Amino acid sequence: MSSGDAKPLRRILGIDPGLNTTGYGVIDFEGVKPRLIEAGVVRSKAKASIESRIDEIYTGVLEVIELHRPTIMALEQLFSHYDRPRTAILMGHARGVICLAAAKSGIEVAHFEPTKVKKVMTGNGRASKAQMQLAVKAHLHLSTVPEPADVADALAIAICGHHLGQGSMMEKLTSR
Amino acid sequence: MSSGDAKPLRRILGIDPGLNTTGYGVIDFEGVKPRLIEAGVVRSKAKASIESRIDEIYTGVLEVIELHRPTIMALEQLFSHYDRPRTAILMGHARGVICLAAAKSGIEVAHFEPTKVKKVMTGNGRASKAQMQLAVKAHLHLSTVPEPADVADALAIAICGHHLGQGSMMEKLTSR
Repeated sequence: MSSGDAKPLRRILGIDPGLNTTGYGVIDFEGVKPRLIEAGVVRSKAKASIESRIDEIYTGVLEVIELHRPTIMALEQLFSHYDRPRTAILMGHARGVICLAAAKSGIEVAHFEPTKVKKVMTGNGRASKAQMQLAVKAHLHLSTVPEPADVADALAIAICGHHLGQGSMMEKLTSR
Repeated sequence: MSSGDAKPLRRILGIDPGLNTTGYGVIDFEGVKPRLIEAGVVRSKAKASIESRIDEIYTGVLEVIELHRPTIMALEQLFSHYDRPRTAILMGHARGVICLAAAKSGIEVAHFEPTKVKKVMTGNGRASKAQMQLAVKAHLHLSTVPEPADVADALAIAICGHHLGQGSMMEKLTSR
């Protein structure tokens, strides 16, 4: 292949799952060049039943998928919540219906550990929320940091979904 | 009301959620008299992706709901798995899509802690699987114990879903 070949366009949907607030970010990549398409959050009513809340999350994520038709979904793993089992179980509920939305839409899911996403974005697997927001702002050439932090996290996962999914130099640098 | 009033028929779907094997049991109650309608398991392929597995669970549970149209779903809580957080998170995925199947079918969900179900059925909150199978066999006047144990657990949850949901003497006896 010559260096003049056009790179295929990939659209990545990054998701930071949560029962209260699920962040999402849609980014187009032409080679490594990113273009932000849309980002936001899906919220569920805190006082509603668990089944009604996960229905809101499922429906919201499905709407984003149907609107933007991403190539893949990049989804955060939940292994960082071992210290708070009740939270982890409830987040598992949210993550389950997000996986289902991908399955029902025929979209492949790539799973990423939060520490890996942080390391790829900042060089530090324990980066703070503010550091992640700044890294995403720089990477996407935004004029302000993405708010709330769930949106920045979702965009970071989308960026990793592209770079790590491509088997790029970034993966080689960050994998053990 | 006179004691001669006909008791309304309630159909309870009990679910014992699991990523590998989800047990279910459908029981009709006319007053306190139970009649077993159907019981079985929904299995997911162990080697498939998580999104494909939860799709199998969701589809299987939805089929049971559509076939039997229960009045309510009685669903086991997951709080007994705090000691195995990874398992708990994955079971949370399964439980999430089971809740979603109820929400999409417009069926109310009643949540029961495993220790409470065991106490109602056997008098012992830490009853073994074999003890639970025997208790369910006796309660439903079955000729053999329900197999596998996930089916017995699902039937036990359905029985509790009826008795506890009715605000019966059983609830008063077992609540603290």
